[in-house]
Amino acid sequence: MPASPAEEHPVAFDDPHYRAAVVDLLGAIGYGEVSAFERLAEDAALAPTLEDKLALAAMAAAQVGHLVRLRDRLTELGADPFEAMESFRVPIDDFHRHTAPSDWHEGLVKAYVGDGLAADFYREVAAFLDAGTRELIVESLEDAGHSAFVVDRVRADIARDPRLGGRLALWGRRLMGEALTQAQRVAAERDALSALLAGGVDRPGLDLAALGRMFTRITERHAARMQELGLDS
Amino acid sequence: MPASPAEEHPVAFDDPHYRAAVVDLLGAIGYGEVSAFERLAEDAALAPTLEDKLALAAMAAAQVGHLVRLRDRLTELGADPFEAMESFRVPIDDFHRHTAPSDWHEGLVKAYVGDGLAADFYREVAAFLDAGTRELIVESLEDAGHSAFVVDRVRADIARDPRLGGRLALWGRRLMGEALTQAQRVAAERDALSALLAGGVDRPGLDLAALGRMFTRITERHAARMQELGLDS
Repeated sequence: MPASPAEEHPVAFDDPHYRAAVVDLLGAIGYGEVSAFERLAEDAALAPTLEDKLALAAMAAAQVGHLVRLRDRLTELGADPFEAMESFRVPIDDFHRHTAPSDWHEGLVKAYVGDGLAADFYREVAAFLDAGTRELIVESLEDAGHSAFVVDRVRADIARDPRLGGRLALWGRRLMGEALTQAQRVAAERDALSALLAGGVDRPGLDLAALGRMFTRITERHAARMQELGLDS
Repeated sequence: MPASPAEEHPVAFDDPHYRAAVVDLLGAIGYGEVSAFERLAEDAALAPTLEDKLALAAMAAAQVGHLVRLRDRLTELGADPFEAMESFRVPIDDFHRHTAPSDWHEGLVKAYVGDGLAADFYREVAAFLDAGTRELIVESLEDAGHSAFVVDRVRADIARDPRLGGRLALWGRRLMGEALTQAQRVAAERDALSALLAGGVDRPGLDLAALGRMFTRITERHAARMQELGLDS
């Protein structure tokens, strides 16, 4: 049941294009979290120790907590939350199919680098949104300190086996390439989202130069994450 | 680091056999929850809709929350929590290997009937323990209303396809049989746990008649759950 727009929504939601873009964005983040849950649960199954297994399971469980809040917000906006998420099933599933980790370490790097990339992108987009939506998105992307576990494990294992570092550096580049491919596909297919980035009559948007700077920021943060893991980007 | 026994533990923990039995019990419940997390996550992967997937993922996430509390309590008791859980890996993994669901419905029934059986057994044992441990166990076994989802789905699907009911009734009997097999194995292998049930100098235990009544109660509750699902037990 949609909530009363006047009570629940800031003025921006009076614009149906804005509302459609927010539903799209929350749907994309939501399906991304469904998918992250499934991947982290698979990684947990591969964990070498029970302690590692619990760490991965806790990362998976955190996704579910975020997902429940996104679902409730989509419902408040009068959208079918599962339909909103379904729209992003194909590109996100394709991303995961094309970057299926072949072992425990690739899974760890993907959890850290892949989720980091997605989170940076969504945070950049959130800067264009009303405060309530922005806050929900930023909360949904919190990792509750679980990344420290990944950094710790990967660095320790590279110290034991330096060849692992070379292999995982290549893996990180592949993750970045595949993420860009799927992001371009989403941009081409989802008009409401692209229009949001381009701005509206009463909302600032991104010109080509600003889009370039956003891309540079995302790339730099990716490089910083790779360095954090002890990997060349 | 073990907490000071005088501060944290009731008198019962001065008995090393009692402490060993509690560590065993919390380890068994903990590994059971690791394993339930993995199984529910696999079931989520099989879910026919995103809504069902989220319901199963939420059940899996709830296990992780319980698990974190059990781990912390085992650490407080001066035990290595993962070692305590490892002791139960073989019987619990065997239970799951021998009752691998072949489809979505078998997975749902197993989540409800199997977890219900385990919870009934642990609650019976908890009655013999100090209040703090008992409370932790009872909280760890809460299902946060997720069972309603299973009951609802299974009943609706049997109404659409009555033959499904016959097949799932047989499945429920198989789950009960396999649970008994593995419980007997644990009782034979874990002396501290068995001794707990038999009682001590200053603690009441179960004689054979009381053990029989406990078994009857567990069987009756199993039958009630099967009936709740619309299945013969």
